[in-house]
Amino acid sequence: MTPDFERYPTEPGVVAARSAGRWVDVEWVDGRSGRFHHVWLRDNCPCLCCVHDITKEQTFELISEPADNPARSVTVSTDGHLDVEWTVGGHRSRYHAGWLRAHCYDGSARVRHDAARSTWDASTPGMPPTFDGPAVMSDDDELLEWLVALRTFGITRLRDVPLDLDAVGRVAGRIGIVRETNFGVLWDVRSEPDPVTNANTALALPPHVDLATREYQPGLQFLHCIENEVPGGRGMYLDGFRVAEILRQEHPHHFEILTRVPWQWANRSKVSDYRWASTPIVLDRHGAVAEVRVGNWLRAPLDVDFDDVEPAYDAFRALFELTYRADLAVPISFRPGDLLAFDNRRVLHGREAFTDTTGTRFLRGCYGERDELHSRIRILERARR
Amino acid sequence: MTPDFERYPTEPGVVAARSAGRWVDVEWVDGRSGRFHHVWLRDNCPCLCCVHDITKEQTFELISEPADNPARSVTVSTDGHLDVEWTVGGHRSRYHAGWLRAHCYDGSARVRHDAARSTWDASTPGMPPTFDGPAVMSDDDELLEWLVALRTFGITRLRDVPLDLDAVGRVAGRIGIVRETNFGVLWDVRSEPDPVTNANTALALPPHVDLATREYQPGLQFLHCIENEVPGGRGMYLDGFRVAEILRQEHPHHFEILTRVPWQWANRSKVSDYRWASTPIVLDRHGAVAEVRVGNWLRAPLDVDFDDVEPAYDAFRALFELTYRADLAVPISFRPGDLLAFDNRRVLHGREAFTDTTGTRFLRGCYGERDELHSRIRILERARR
Repeated sequence: MTPDFERYPTEPGVVAARSAGRWVDVEWVDGRSGRFHHVWLRDNCPCLCCVHDITKEQTFELISEPADNPARSVTVSTDGHLDVEWTVGGHRSRYHAGWLRAHCYDGSARVRHDAARSTWDASTPGMPPTFDGPAVMSDDDELLEWLVALRTFGITRLRDVPLDLDAVGRVAGRIGIVRETNFGVLWDVRSEPDPVTNANTALALPPHVDLATREYQPGLQFLHCIENEVPGGRGMYLDGFRVAEILRQEHPHHFEILTRVPWQWANRSKVSDYRWASTPIVLDRHGAVAEVRVGNWLRAPLDVDFDDVEPAYDAFRALFELTYRADLAVPISFRPGDLLAFDNRRVLHGREAFTDTTGTRFLRGCYGERDELHSRIRILERARR
Repeated sequence: MTPDFERYPTEPGVVAARSAGRWVDVEWVDGRSGRFHHVWLRDNCPCLCCVHDITKEQTFELISEPADNPARSVTVSTDGHLDVEWTVGGHRSRYHAGWLRAHCYDGSARVRHDAARSTWDASTPGMPPTFDGPAVMSDDDELLEWLVALRTFGITRLRDVPLDLDAVGRVAGRIGIVRETNFGVLWDVRSEPDPVTNANTALALPPHVDLATREYQPGLQFLHCIENEVPGGRGMYLDGFRVAEILRQEHPHHFEILTRVPWQWANRSKVSDYRWASTPIVLDRHGAVAEVRVGNWLRAPLDVDFDDVEPAYDAFRALFELTYRADLAVPISFRPGDLLAFDNRRVLHGREAFTDTTGTRFLRGCYGERDELHSRIRILERARR
């Protein structure tokens, strides 16, 4: 009776419903009410003719009926659901009271699905939120707690993750698909004699996101410390959303430039040549910061209108300067068994230079996607209902 | 002497250069000229102090020098390159004449990097562009020709691809990384008793892109026909960019709605729950159509402002109606060994229903990304220079 795999409460039931021209007024037992357009209701009919019984995917095709197909009758069933009969074709639809309520889009009754998000800086206590690796691997409640923190703060740490080379892939697999890139499925960060990237030197790395050079920057990054015996190499982590918001407050002109003028990004490799153009800050349709794209050495020669060049440089300089502010960056040192998981389109990470002559610093990492995280959270929450 | 792995022609050399306040005027032997800002030049110094010798990634950090560091001297070397000495710090930079020219961003001298793109419909001859599978697999010149066609038209066909189960992965691997999803690395399209998606029934499928439910719809899709003995199942392919442009011309109001009001997308599965909100048509910053997101049964219940509901439905209906217009859709029937490769954020594909009681229709597919395609083309072109 519902067109998906969720369960919805049957209470409160629908107590009254009537057609009001182009929509249906629905009232639930507890007094809440909402309007649903006829066209919306017809499209969302959950019956077995309109939704495939096994896949739960729609088989009714929107354009198979005329645009104007108003309800001929609107009634409430004895068990509190909404019944509609359609004028053209005479199709009958029943809408579950709880499903209707969960999908109400009308004014104050509208259900908001946005997940909480908390920005942070060096003054935020308890960063990064830290969880027990073995517990997360074995217990779905611990897993859910970890993932909700990751969604909320964009960064988390697991402790005591086993030191084998596959562990980071197993941890990422608790969420979903690992994203393979030109670096491989799992990749190593350590000083190498013939590095393909500055990450694989002992150099300091300015704060950045990984693969800013790709159309789709990975949404998640996992870094697992297997060995760390070197002087230096301390990590610096920043909430790019907080950085962007501070820029918006303190330098609105620079902020505007960074959301309007695209920067060019490019990798440099013998076997691949990824390039992309995107603004360093991307806003969602509500004006909130949705994504940052930052990385000093990942920038290609700027290729924008002549008059935009100096403003673009001034704006990026202001952003880079913020990333070195001590009140914003959270220093994080790795010890073996630590695993950092973070939103790679939100969190900037950098490191101080280290000395690679007296010991080894060896991290192993992989990438994932944000919507794998969100999917896993929904599935874990579904299992609890 | 250049900060990447490309080769640039040394002719024509630079013949004159002088600082003009905040930029340098550069003139080449053939009379062409361009302006380069001081800040841009300093940032792009290719010397071994500023760019890592092996990785070719920048080690100079933009904010390590003051914003205002004008050129102290600007000269032309005896072999026609540009030499600059900087005021603060006295750093010296040499810019290769051909590299400079390739990266000129100034007015009429600006080098455009946009690849050609041709839209098509049912009247376009020779669709889809067809290539020999074995030749593409063994010969890099054939490979390049195929990939340029794929970039230009967004759809191509290979013939005579071997009928084994790994072939589609090998073909996609000629481009780059195969993108794993909840359907797996390689996945099958055939009628199944317990389908996870309507694609795995014998039902007709309205024109759609795959995984419209994901934040990042795959940029490339590969479909390889291994068996096809059924009545029906003919494929219908549309250039979503052409469809969108026709909508823009014929129904500008609907077009505007489809680029402004987000639709909700959702999959329905027992083990994953991907959801995303995005406008069905996405424009780039120049107003050109960059992406379409269409699929009747992948739509979740619309969740937008009450007053946007009916306009959003009217607009989507207009778009859906276009996808059934006989002058737009190209019918393509699969024969075993055919492999279609197409841009999954541009090309809509659908199929007619088929009869699954008398034979088998078996396709095997996988996904990739657009920027893997563009990278491979650049690397193949680099090898030719």
